[in-house]
Amino acid sequence: MSAAIIDGKKIAEDIRREVKEAVLRLKAKKGIVPGLAFILVGEEPASQSYVRSKGKACDELGFYSVTEKVDVSIPEGKVLSMIDGFNRDPKIHGILVQLPLPKHINEQKVFEAILPKKDVDGFHPINIGRMMTGAETFYPCTPAGIWELLKRSNINPSGKHVVVVGRSNIVGKPIANILMQKREWCNAIVTIAHTAAPDLSYYTRQADILIAAIGKAHAITSSMVQPGVVVIDVGINRVVDRTTKTGYRIVGDVDFDAVKEVAGAITPVPGGVGPMTIAMLMMNTLKSAQRA
Amino acid sequence: MSAAIIDGKKIAEDIRREVKEAVLRLKAKKGIVPGLAFILVGEEPASQSYVRSKGKACDELGFYSVTEKVDVSIPEGKVLSMIDGFNRDPKIHGILVQLPLPKHINEQKVFEAILPKKDVDGFHPINIGRMMTGAETFYPCTPAGIWELLKRSNINPSGKHVVVVGRSNIVGKPIANILMQKREWCNAIVTIAHTAAPDLSYYTRQADILIAAIGKAHAITSSMVQPGVVVIDVGINRVVDRTTKTGYRIVGDVDFDAVKEVAGAITPVPGGVGPMTIAMLMMNTLKSAQRA
Repeated sequence: MSAAIIDGKKIAEDIRREVKEAVLRLKAKKGIVPGLAFILVGEEPASQSYVRSKGKACDELGFYSVTEKVDVSIPEGKVLSMIDGFNRDPKIHGILVQLPLPKHINEQKVFEAILPKKDVDGFHPINIGRMMTGAETFYPCTPAGIWELLKRSNINPSGKHVVVVGRSNIVGKPIANILMQKREWCNAIVTIAHTAAPDLSYYTRQADILIAAIGKAHAITSSMVQPGVVVIDVGINRVVDRTTKTGYRIVGDVDFDAVKEVAGAITPVPGGVGPMTIAMLMMNTLKSAQRA
Repeated sequence: MSAAIIDGKKIAEDIRREVKEAVLRLKAKKGIVPGLAFILVGEEPASQSYVRSKGKACDELGFYSVTEKVDVSIPEGKVLSMIDGFNRDPKIHGILVQLPLPKHINEQKVFEAILPKKDVDGFHPINIGRMMTGAETFYPCTPAGIWELLKRSNINPSGKHVVVVGRSNIVGKPIANILMQKREWCNAIVTIAHTAAPDLSYYTRQADILIAAIGKAHAITSSMVQPGVVVIDVGINRVVDRTTKTGYRIVGDVDFDAVKEVAGAITPVPGGVGPMTIAMLMMNTLKSAQRA
């Protein structure tokens, strides 16, 4: 039997519609328009494309947005003072510095320069710390999107074994820390596995919910999961495909075609976690504006 | 065969001796004496005893220390302004507010009032966030003590399955976050299990290293572990014992007598993790003074 497909595109559209309506209410009630500032350093095509998509989402959902595109050689201090300007700007409720940054700019310094209450990416260590302790805060957008996908698909992690593969600061570690919390729609027993495991499948085969955030095409095969598992695929990998115009296509970390025959539910790539990330960014920015 | 006993008391004494020598060097070289401020709210006997032990450690190791004992009815604002005073005091390198606090004082506010660089307890969310991302920071004393016990016992968690039972903000969550990091003496595959698990032993039996931070006497029995496991017992539980003068004795979360016959190595209670906590507090305060 084939797995249920978790339609991230549709769920993200639902969220975007909800956010759009909330923006109208916020504007009518308090005269506040959520504002999001983007800082884009350099001309990396993927980064440009991400910022473009986020800007488009702002337009569609009725947000105010500003994009500062600056040269890759910009000194760190200049980026910090741009952040400071947005920190002081009452029209701006969220500040997003597109990653990756060039080597001469210290990422950690940049994260810590953003006012925690405008840190809609959830990368400021104070917000990460609050997340870990279970306090109210902005969750980083990709793990927030995974959590929302589970909730809206009525998949409750409570008491279940969640296995997270990958321990990045923006996906693996935060989703592990969220799902282990003692609260509704969390409360999971969480294993965080990674490349240091002598046999990764020993862990993945135990998963009731498997979250793959590895960054390697088709790293999770059908023999690595148990029947009925819920699979959340965070990977976005390019593989060569001569049949397409571009010469490549995007695949996840999971061998979708094979794993969907074993799993109970699975997210596709594209159209799974991806669209949720932007939706959650908009949600975080809306929340920030509502609190302003 | 009986497990090797990990002698936390001896290891803690080694650390205290090392810290004492470093204090002498710091004083000779830069004229700096590490200073630790304690705030003790109310008269809870356990809290008084903890603060007394920490104060004694300060005396023995050549630290300067101040203890502010205040009435349980003290307003929150007064505690915050005491913290502010210590934040500004150049003789003070570490500030410790003894827990638990009375209900009318917001713990989170107290943690966030302490300057991160004087937060030697490692409870400020910014330090917790830095810990999660793998940045340099103060680790909370009990997980730091567990890590140090492993290192000094030459037990390398890298590639091993560490199972943490319990998800408190001061032990379970931080030790999980430390040991999953991609760095030396970490790099473990970490499972964080807790009361929501339908069958806790399913997880504990997988552990190469089992960290019990449950808060329940003898919760881990010999049938719940695999042969050769390293057991770190964080529990401090009182059980009735009519043969003692006090009428009780202190036991851990692990059924020591039975589990030591199965385990490869085990920490006793008392004399395991307990003494390490104060040793690491002193180490954190020394580091803070060295950076001052």
